[in-house]
Amino acid sequence: MIIHHTIEDFRAWRSGLESKTSVGFTPTMGALHEGHLSHIRSLYGHVDQIVASVYVNPSQFSPGEDFEKYPRDLEGDARKLQNAGCNVLFYPNDSEMYPSGFSTAVSVQGVTDRYEGFFRPAYFQGVATIVCKLLNVVDPDVMTLGQKDAQQVAVIQRMMIDLNLRSRIQVIETVREEDGLAMSSRNVYLSPGDRREALTIHHALLTAKVSIAEGRSIHDVTEIMRGIISSKFKIDYCDIVNPATFSTHVSPNGPLLAIFAGTIGSTRLIDNIVLR
Amino acid sequence: MIIHHTIEDFRAWRSGLESKTSVGFTPTMGALHEGHLSHIRSLYGHVDQIVASVYVNPSQFSPGEDFEKYPRDLEGDARKLQNAGCNVLFYPNDSEMYPSGFSTAVSVQGVTDRYEGFFRPAYFQGVATIVCKLLNVVDPDVMTLGQKDAQQVAVIQRMMIDLNLRSRIQVIETVREEDGLAMSSRNVYLSPGDRREALTIHHALLTAKVSIAEGRSIHDVTEIMRGIISSKFKIDYCDIVNPATFSTHVSPNGPLLAIFAGTIGSTRLIDNIVLR
Repeated sequence: MIIHHTIEDFRAWRSGLESKTSVGFTPTMGALHEGHLSHIRSLYGHVDQIVASVYVNPSQFSPGEDFEKYPRDLEGDARKLQNAGCNVLFYPNDSEMYPSGFSTAVSVQGVTDRYEGFFRPAYFQGVATIVCKLLNVVDPDVMTLGQKDAQQVAVIQRMMIDLNLRSRIQVIETVREEDGLAMSSRNVYLSPGDRREALTIHHALLTAKVSIAEGRSIHDVTEIMRGIISSKFKIDYCDIVNPATFSTHVSPNGPLLAIFAGTIGSTRLIDNIVLR
Repeated sequence: MIIHHTIEDFRAWRSGLESKTSVGFTPTMGALHEGHLSHIRSLYGHVDQIVASVYVNPSQFSPGEDFEKYPRDLEGDARKLQNAGCNVLFYPNDSEMYPSGFSTAVSVQGVTDRYEGFFRPAYFQGVATIVCKLLNVVDPDVMTLGQKDAQQVAVIQRMMIDLNLRSRIQVIETVREEDGLAMSSRNVYLSPGDRREALTIHHALLTAKVSIAEGRSIHDVTEIMRGIISSKFKIDYCDIVNPATFSTHVSPNGPLLAIFAGTIGSTRLIDNIVLR
């Protein structure tokens, strides 16, 4: 696996590929786990070259969030990526991505108004801006994004349509621990006790899925989820939404997504489940 | 000359080019005059394919500006472009560029704080967003921009660096009428009397250039310009700035640009001159 630290080096490699070479891309913030590696594996055999980026993007952390203590492990990440079949790792530093004088932002309205957009004010503008930059550097045919960050998928899809970016998004199912907890780089922050209680999230989401299938109302199912989770978590939000708009205005037989974010101990976790 | 009305059609043409084919691009709002055509001519012979776009972008007009009455003449524009050597005209409509649900904006801080950014609140965000979109559709090697819109050049250059857009900017000198008035699609709004008085702008800018060359201070030269122009125009601004930042903090021997915007009758004109 090749590691490029600069945009110039990456572009020299990229422009050396034949024009019919297909490129798949997985953007990450490192601290890689099976969830990330499932992105690489989903690309393996389907594109000619697999590119991953590892960059802890400061602009998507709000004040008071865990930017400083966010786990970093380049050596481990590089080994895992190589073993999963990744061909190129793009690993820039801050001065490469935000050079002196940087002053541009990409923002998406509407789908960012609530939920993660409300609780993490810097988040989606930071994400939209860095993903726009990475897409312009990497120029992939397909980019993988994780279903676990479902609102992020909706925001980036909106941005890519609106700015006429040519890549296609491939959404990758959430990978879970054996007991159902969604994998997250932030799970390392959990105490053993909180780790056990965190199972409540998946239990509540599965209960919501079963309850919707049984024909119960969105209102009732939302209350059931909240009842289960609130015993263990301080809830930021727990709702049922349209997965494209993240609005609670849903059509009678349209798609439904149950979403959750909340805090246990000092760790904030999010998860979601497709209800239909 | 081929005319493409949709992004899909344009992209089908673009992706059919061999990868080593060089593409030059001139974005316009139509109502083409010699100023625009000088862009096409500057590309002629230097790139393999010349693309122009004609699109009156609603999002860069502020409330009360001339969006509705902005001159439109597709037939004349197409004939002029073809005669100047343009190969492809991209001529989209509003629903092509801003489809239902559009909600993304590209914004640039700092260089947009003053001057056009102050007097035309919607302008630079509208320009940055549409140019980002057009660059993603056209994917040119070089894009021409006019020196007449000097602050726009600085904003777009900043945006392209920050978002890692691969194209290079080629700045084209302002084309003037024989008597010195900068060509502008908005000159058609001028009454014969105002048209004569409008010469005052170029006279003041030339006087500034001579005065700086004679070693007079920036403060004095600014006052001289303002004195000349204020007899005929309602001045929005008339200043001497750093052309990269549009700040009046200039270095002792650094580049200087004299800039002007103001209104005569009901017509707003802008112009500038490189002082050193």
